[in-house]
Amino acid sequence: MILVHTPSPKEVSAYLELFQAAMPEQAFVSLEQATPDEVRYLIAWGLPDGIIARLPRLQAMFALGAGVDKLLSRQDLPVNLPLYRLLDSGMANQMTEYIRYGVLGYQRNMDVYRRQQATGQWRMLAPQLPEDVRVGILGLGEIGSAVAKALARDGYPVSGWSRGPKHIHHVHSLHGEAGLEKLLETSDVIASVLPSTPQTQGLLNGARLSLMQPGSMLINAGRGDLLDQDALLALLNNGHIRCAQLDVFAEEPLPHGHPLWHHPSVTITPHVAAITLRQQAVEQIVGNLRKLAAGLQAEGRVERAQGY
Amino acid sequence: MILVHTPSPKEVSAYLELFQAAMPEQAFVSLEQATPDEVRYLIAWGLPDGIIARLPRLQAMFALGAGVDKLLSRQDLPVNLPLYRLLDSGMANQMTEYIRYGVLGYQRNMDVYRRQQATGQWRMLAPQLPEDVRVGILGLGEIGSAVAKALARDGYPVSGWSRGPKHIHHVHSLHGEAGLEKLLETSDVIASVLPSTPQTQGLLNGARLSLMQPGSMLINAGRGDLLDQDALLALLNNGHIRCAQLDVFAEEPLPHGHPLWHHPSVTITPHVAAITLRQQAVEQIVGNLRKLAAGLQAEGRVERAQGY
Repeated sequence: MILVHTPSPKEVSAYLELFQAAMPEQAFVSLEQATPDEVRYLIAWGLPDGIIARLPRLQAMFALGAGVDKLLSRQDLPVNLPLYRLLDSGMANQMTEYIRYGVLGYQRNMDVYRRQQATGQWRMLAPQLPEDVRVGILGLGEIGSAVAKALARDGYPVSGWSRGPKHIHHVHSLHGEAGLEKLLETSDVIASVLPSTPQTQGLLNGARLSLMQPGSMLINAGRGDLLDQDALLALLNNGHIRCAQLDVFAEEPLPHGHPLWHHPSVTITPHVAAITLRQQAVEQIVGNLRKLAAGLQAEGRVERAQGY
Repeated sequence: MILVHTPSPKEVSAYLELFQAAMPEQAFVSLEQATPDEVRYLIAWGLPDGIIARLPRLQAMFALGAGVDKLLSRQDLPVNLPLYRLLDSGMANQMTEYIRYGVLGYQRNMDVYRRQQATGQWRMLAPQLPEDVRVGILGLGEIGSAVAKALARDGYPVSGWSRGPKHIHHVHSLHGEAGLEKLLETSDVIASVLPSTPQTQGLLNGARLSLMQPGSMLINAGRGDLLDQDALLALLNNGHIRCAQLDVFAEEPLPHGHPLWHHPSVTITPHVAAITLRQQAVEQIVGNLRKLAAGLQAEGRVERAQGY
């Protein structure tokens, strides 16, 4: 028996139908339908506390998302339970689109034209070509690598930063503290897709944000606790950072009246840069269930020590 | 002797240097330096009236732009003077970027999120994939074909419309009045790169705009006199058209206080979708000058009857 859960009953029904169709030989059930003793696998997002402890035969859990920081901070997750997260190319495509939109807007001065429009100002700016805009990607995992490669194909000079060294075609790879400083100092657009881990929390503090190029752009599509929002606001207000496109925040929803809502150089989206696409999530998890049944390694196993 | 002119003396100096370096065997001169009797070729944009009549040995003119409508409406342009316009892939790339930005923003609901941001509203919308957004390109010349092919590569279902039938890989080609109506009725985003000709003026009138899909988007990056701006405003105000990205207008600059400036669903840019890039213009015109010198056909010859 395989238990499927998300906070929305409507979504659970949709998932159950898709899973059952993709794997008719297994029984997929909702929390209400489950017999705890028989649940071998758990496929979930936003699970209430205490459920996991009631499943004595649980062999593995599949998260219905890519970012597992909240899940890992739970007290009721057994240390030795194999945990898998989505490594979904659909999410990589969405993230690429979200970051491409920001980079393209910066290259073509759309943020400046929008500010000019607010005051009815008609003023042409010198055109920039993709090769003029250096993009720095924070995070070169599955999603970050896909974003970096796509933007390099668009013609942007792309660098990326990750914990350890990476080798990605046409992407200049940096790592470590010195690498992070170099990335910040030499990019026109910084885009983060980093997960939230003890090592990334507060990574973009005021000191590091100040290393960014004058007139540069920040895109945050990873996790909100990476960024010191007050420091960002100060650097936007003094003009050091030209604009920002933010999808994630220290507190979500972004609180009513927060100055980021109303800053003329900031675009706010409600954590939608990469949404789990049901069909693609189902295909990936079913593929993993089949691998485990065949005694093979499944993909997306979370390393607890790393945090992703 | 080859005369180079634009309204900006600084730009003329920059062009003269680039042309001279690319073709040292020819003498490139400004209006002030020119000996009218010796001018064989004219490379110009925004030429004052009466200059052409004073050049008795003129063999051809090269426009420093792609849109020659204003030039063709001049009284002093000899009917038989061969006229060439830029067919510049640099401009096609810029136009692709401009339209891709609009389409990507529509697909990812960025216009809706921007309106929500104005009122501090945090609300996720269902994600759309590129295959969900049908794009219709008005104009399938050099630039329109390049845009259509690029957007098809991005994964959008792309149709295009032009005067006569065209065959472009992965682009559904329509033509004629029935084709235009079909394109308008079956596209989620309509993007125009049409030139201004007697046939295209007023093409997007109220009746035709009303054929567009409810909730669709209009991008105009061709010429402003194509579009009935009042009809567009009415359809934006009653919610039939969701948003617009406009680069060209019936009157430019768009007059101060015009309602389009302040419409929350409209993005205004000051005729910058595709700007002539100096180096690329020089390379293309020098290539044409060498072809003419070798007795070959040059590219971009304007058909006066067609208007482009």
